[in-house]
Amino acid sequence: MRYLDEQTIDFLAIGAAVLGSGGGGDPYLGKLMAKEAIIEKGKVRLIDVEKVPDDELVIPSAMMGAPAVMLEKLPNGGEPEAAFRAVESFFRKKAYATMSIEAGGINSCIPVYTAARLGLPLVDVDGMGRAFPEIPMVTFSLGGLQASPMVCCDEKGNKVVLETIDNPWVETLSRAVTVAMGLSSIIGLYVMDGKTLKEFGVRGTISLAIEIGERIVSANKRKESPVDSILEVTKGYRLFEGKVIDVQRDLTTGFVRGQTIFEGIESYKGSSFRLDFQNENLVAWLDNEPCAMVPDLVTVLDRETGSPITTEHLRYGQRVVVIGMPCAPIWRTEKGLAQVGPRYFKYDIDYEPIEDLMRRRSP
Amino acid sequence: MRYLDEQTIDFLAIGAAVLGSGGGGDPYLGKLMAKEAIIEKGKVRLIDVEKVPDDELVIPSAMMGAPAVMLEKLPNGGEPEAAFRAVESFFRKKAYATMSIEAGGINSCIPVYTAARLGLPLVDVDGMGRAFPEIPMVTFSLGGLQASPMVCCDEKGNKVVLETIDNPWVETLSRAVTVAMGLSSIIGLYVMDGKTLKEFGVRGTISLAIEIGERIVSANKRKESPVDSILEVTKGYRLFEGKVIDVQRDLTTGFVRGQTIFEGIESYKGSSFRLDFQNENLVAWLDNEPCAMVPDLVTVLDRETGSPITTEHLRYGQRVVVIGMPCAPIWRTEKGLAQVGPRYFKYDIDYEPIEDLMRRRSP
Repeated sequence: MRYLDEQTIDFLAIGAAVLGSGGGGDPYLGKLMAKEAIIEKGKVRLIDVEKVPDDELVIPSAMMGAPAVMLEKLPNGGEPEAAFRAVESFFRKKAYATMSIEAGGINSCIPVYTAARLGLPLVDVDGMGRAFPEIPMVTFSLGGLQASPMVCCDEKGNKVVLETIDNPWVETLSRAVTVAMGLSSIIGLYVMDGKTLKEFGVRGTISLAIEIGERIVSANKRKESPVDSILEVTKGYRLFEGKVIDVQRDLTTGFVRGQTIFEGIESYKGSSFRLDFQNENLVAWLDNEPCAMVPDLVTVLDRETGSPITTEHLRYGQRVVVIGMPCAPIWRTEKGLAQVGPRYFKYDIDYEPIEDLMRRRSP
Repeated sequence: MRYLDEQTIDFLAIGAAVLGSGGGGDPYLGKLMAKEAIIEKGKVRLIDVEKVPDDELVIPSAMMGAPAVMLEKLPNGGEPEAAFRAVESFFRKKAYATMSIEAGGINSCIPVYTAARLGLPLVDVDGMGRAFPEIPMVTFSLGGLQASPMVCCDEKGNKVVLETIDNPWVETLSRAVTVAMGLSSIIGLYVMDGKTLKEFGVRGTISLAIEIGERIVSANKRKESPVDSILEVTKGYRLFEGKVIDVQRDLTTGFVRGQTIFEGIESYKGSSFRLDFQNENLVAWLDNEPCAMVPDLVTVLDRETGSPITTEHLRYGQRVVVIGMPCAPIWRTEKGLAQVGPRYFKYDIDYEPIEDLMRRRSP
């Protein structure tokens, strides 16, 4: 058990954005909210998954919507309470803890904000080990858990409880509600008991994110590059070094879909590199061959500071290192790949683990 | 107390459409649903407002969305039960009865459908005495009652409970949910106790609608015009007789706004007549002077059969009688007019009761 203080939140936000694989939101807002709640309400207790009794209720909390809007339309602090009371009233049971549903700059910090405001512990776990663009893409889905009942709250005090027949309907209805609420909402979903959490959760995501963030910050203090240190703790690989030469974005589907084109520098000079994304990075192509693909993690880091650059912040001319990291093992099962593998995202390629792809590349 | 059977539903649907003031939906679908539920589940008990104990729970039921879509996407019969269970669970109290929130072809029949399916009585009352385009436009609002908590259910089994800070937010969020559900939903809203119902309800709307419908049907059997008979029971006035020469509709705001232009026949020959509408008819203009206005009722009837023609069914060449009827007295209070008077609908005119306008016109 440990306590998360303001400083830990700096580490968490940046480290979670590394795990966010280009998505999961800008760390800035999440950090702001979590820190402000800790200053007002005190440190947050981080507990191990094993500490949650089998029959206790855990309510994950998150933010839904457009990050750019969230910066303009700040939460008022009352939403987590409203959301949790609605869910507790539905289940007629008090929440034991909250947790993160995805790793990312925003949604790893929102549960800290919720935990601080409600005086609940935060479980060291998440439901992805990374970020993904769609609500059903969580490990708990593999165990048959539904996102519904889900609650959406806005900063004005409106509250909507959705009970749907399946996860795609949660996606459709909560998206409509979030848009009507002004493009962002605080949500509670995938409510589960301790037993389900232990069976399907991706363990240790929060402490891993904090560790990554701490390595980045301390390397920067020593004026060193943190990239190797990140690769060490995430068991990741350096995929490419280069310069962003083009970013194409299409927003018409409600997601940010597109691709980023890079030009190699130093030992990668002469190579072409492309990243396809849908909010998160999906497939990395080196000289037109895939070198990393979903559900494995691909993140773009600033070449100097090692800071993660989300897909929305990619700009022409940035000098970057692209890294790939193995995903949580549960995603590599048949069921996991059916849900978040390359074919789900309409690629006509079979999933190959990043370790295999790198092994083939190195000799 | 009386029982509503299949035949009564024929009367109710057509009579409620007369009170619907051009809106409230096509009677056809409502009739179909109510009759089918009565055939399957038995007659519905119609009870007087005074029969509802002060502390009992009444849940109005209605359909929200586009009538044209409702004809393609028929309810499955399970929505009222889902909606009522959600509301009952919210209030931790069983429903004593259901009721109609507005008078109109669809929303006077949906509560019959609900009552039949759930074995509940229907209260002889509504919250408008006519139809209005927006959710907050009910007499109960004048007593401070909120539409929220509101529940929306679809034919697939999805269920959404909204708890909002005010009525405009109910409108915004339920509209978004209904659109996402495929443009129609069964809703429960303005949940109230017997005391509120007695204080603010428009009494006798259901039996008045049945009486109007019965007069239309029996006059038609005798090959007579039912118009005078309708005017007698509604204390209404003949505003105009003529032919539709133009209908302009604008759907861009989510409502059907527009105007219908008529050309006089017989004693109205040479006169011009115009009806402005926003789903419902708002203001009637005879030779460019208002001769009836919201909240008073204005309805277009087929000149031969006396059948009401809703604004969506107005067509070039129809020969019609336009009638005006006084609204429920509660709408003529200062608070009532602020909510549904001509100035609310952006007209720069003060409300004048139809009786005064007709008195001025007759000499």
